[in-house]
Amino acid sequence: MLPELPFEPVMELVGIFVGALSGGLAAVRKRFDLFGVLVLAWAAGLGGGLMRDVLIGAIPPVAIADWRFIVTALAGGVAMYFFHPRLVRARRTIAVLDAGALALFAVVGTVKGLQFDVGVVAAVFVGTITGVGGGVLRDLLTAEVPAVLHHRELYAVPALVGAASTALLWGTGVLTSVTAALVVAVVFVLRLLAMRFHLNAPGPWEGFRRAV
Amino acid sequence: MLPELPFEPVMELVGIFVGALSGGLAAVRKRFDLFGVLVLAWAAGLGGGLMRDVLIGAIPPVAIADWRFIVTALAGGVAMYFFHPRLVRARRTIAVLDAGALALFAVVGTVKGLQFDVGVVAAVFVGTITGVGGGVLRDLLTAEVPAVLHHRELYAVPALVGAASTALLWGTGVLTSVTAALVVAVVFVLRLLAMRFHLNAPGPWEGFRRAV
Amino acid sequence: MLPELPFEPVMELVGIFVGALSGGLAAVRKRFDLFGVLVLAWAAGLGGGLMRDVLIGAIPPVAIADWRFIVTALAGGVAMYFFHPRLVRARRTIAVLDAGALALFAVVGTVKGLQFDVGVVAAVFVGTITGVGGGVLRDLLTAEVPAVLHHRELYAVPALVGAASTALLWGTGVLTSVTAALVVAVVFVLRLLAMRFHLNAPGPWEGFRRAV
Repeated sequence: MLPELPFEPVMELVGIFVGALSGGLAAVRKRFDLFGVLVLAWAAGLGGGLMRDVLIGAIPPVAIADWRFIVTALAGGVAMYFFHPRLVRARRTIAVLDAGALALFAVVGTVKGLQFDVGVVAAVFVGTITGVGGGVLRDLLTAEVPAVLHHRELYAVPALVGAASTALLWGTGVLTSVTAALVVAVVFVLRLLAMRFHLNAPGPWEGFRRAV
Repeated sequence: MLPELPFEPVMELVGIFVGALSGGLAAVRKRFDLFGVLVLAWAAGLGGGLMRDVLIGAIPPVAIADWRFIVTALAGGVAMYFFHPRLVRARRTIAVLDAGALALFAVVGTVKGLQFDVGVVAAVFVGTITGVGGGVLRDLLTAEVPAVLHHRELYAVPALVGAASTALLWGTGVLTSVTAALVVAVVFVLRLLAMRFHLNAPGPWEGFRRAV
Repeated sequence: MLPELPFEPVMELVGIFVGALSGGLAAVRKRFDLFGVLVLAWAAGLGGGLMRDVLIGAIPPVAIADWRFIVTALAGGVAMYFFHPRLVRARRTIAVLDAGALALFAVVGTVKGLQFDVGVVAAVFVGTITGVGGGVLRDLLTAEVPAVLHHRELYAVPALVGAASTALLWGTGVLTSVTAALVVAVVFVLRLLAMRFHLNAPGPWEGFRRAV
């Protein structure tokens, strides 16, 4: 039996809402109309779960089937549509919430992969994708290179660490709601540290000569 | 038992052909070669159904498995490849046919979702996607922002209305080939009205001060 | 019983590695960081198989479940990250290896489609997609128009020929490891000829007047 995280349902809705804000913001910046803002909010809030569910065979994906998730994502879009000047000023708060969402999605996504019995490697993959996939879909739909691929600060790596840790705990039989919550906390802190100290993945390699 | 629309098979082929024309045109404008034109025609004519089938678990998707559909889409590409100057002049006719295709696809797609038992919410989603997904795939493959997200005139909204109406009729037990055909007609007219009177979704919000 | 190609496992890993190099190179050119290089290497090396597996219902896709494939793709990314100046000089060798990978993937992908009983048409489709899909995903993730759609030299057509030949051999009951290997060889040579003699699909049509 795989664990449920405490407060998982509420936290998941918060995560979707925050993701949806980032999608709504991208749409507002492209001067999309209200419909475009809602689509982008949906894509950013639920795109990661959509990819995960298609990849593990969880059909229909919750992103198109669970009205609570959909309403939450659309609410994020509506909020951004009307209040974007104010929300943009709150971007630090939103970034912190987004770090929490990333952490939660990575763990929850990995657990769902394990529940669908796809194996450890695939579970880690879909866990990471649950965390970062919404942003990727948002960027694809606005014809941008996905930010996660050239992000200034580590974003996918904390998600990957969280997904791998979750799978490891499961593999060793000690994945409980307590240890899972611990992983969420670690990923959250990792992401905050990455933002605070501008931790990056190694940039373009300038050749061995110069590096030595 | 879910209804079959009268003339559905023929109308569906017409819809695919018209969608394929739009893909072929996008490819011609990008000066793709014949192969690129055919791929874009396929993507625009069958991409909506492809997304729907992946999302509801209808494997393999008809977009890659049904040779009649595929031949029809490729025929649209060939037509646009050779006759694009003439077809571009007929754009008003094509836009009207496209409105019909949008209406039909939204209803047919929703019905297929219901047949695959994905639930009402997911059926409405995939119905809408069946209508607009081909254009989205066309635009992604030409590295453009999907037109449906910043379209001048309502496009996805009529599809959504059609999908929701279909699901509502089904939920209340009165979805028959007659009522389904009625929904197709309503969506068709909605889309024509949107084109004729330049009906838009609300544009970028300029803040409460100015709006009041 | 469908045939196994001789040396298939080794050749498949070579194909994935070569595909991954092309993804890594695209990422290096966009000045992505190491993480972005690895993602692009994975996408280019395994994206075709990923699309195939989603379309035929092979869940979870090997692209996210088979650690040998994933490690091979990431190794291609690491190689390109550190050695890209040297690898770029070896581009002729890489192009030849890529032709081999294209040929192998087209045949192997078609066989997998047939194994999953999706029908001849869908098998040809997914065989072709297995060959060219990695490059498409690589280009989408770097916000470029897929090279295969406007490529100077035939790329998808050899893959299509290979997939169709494989399905034909299977349909007539003479698909064995020998005939399959023969198809791989033919596709390989076709692609090399296309490169050597700059064979193209017909370019934009300039109208009947000029053509006659």
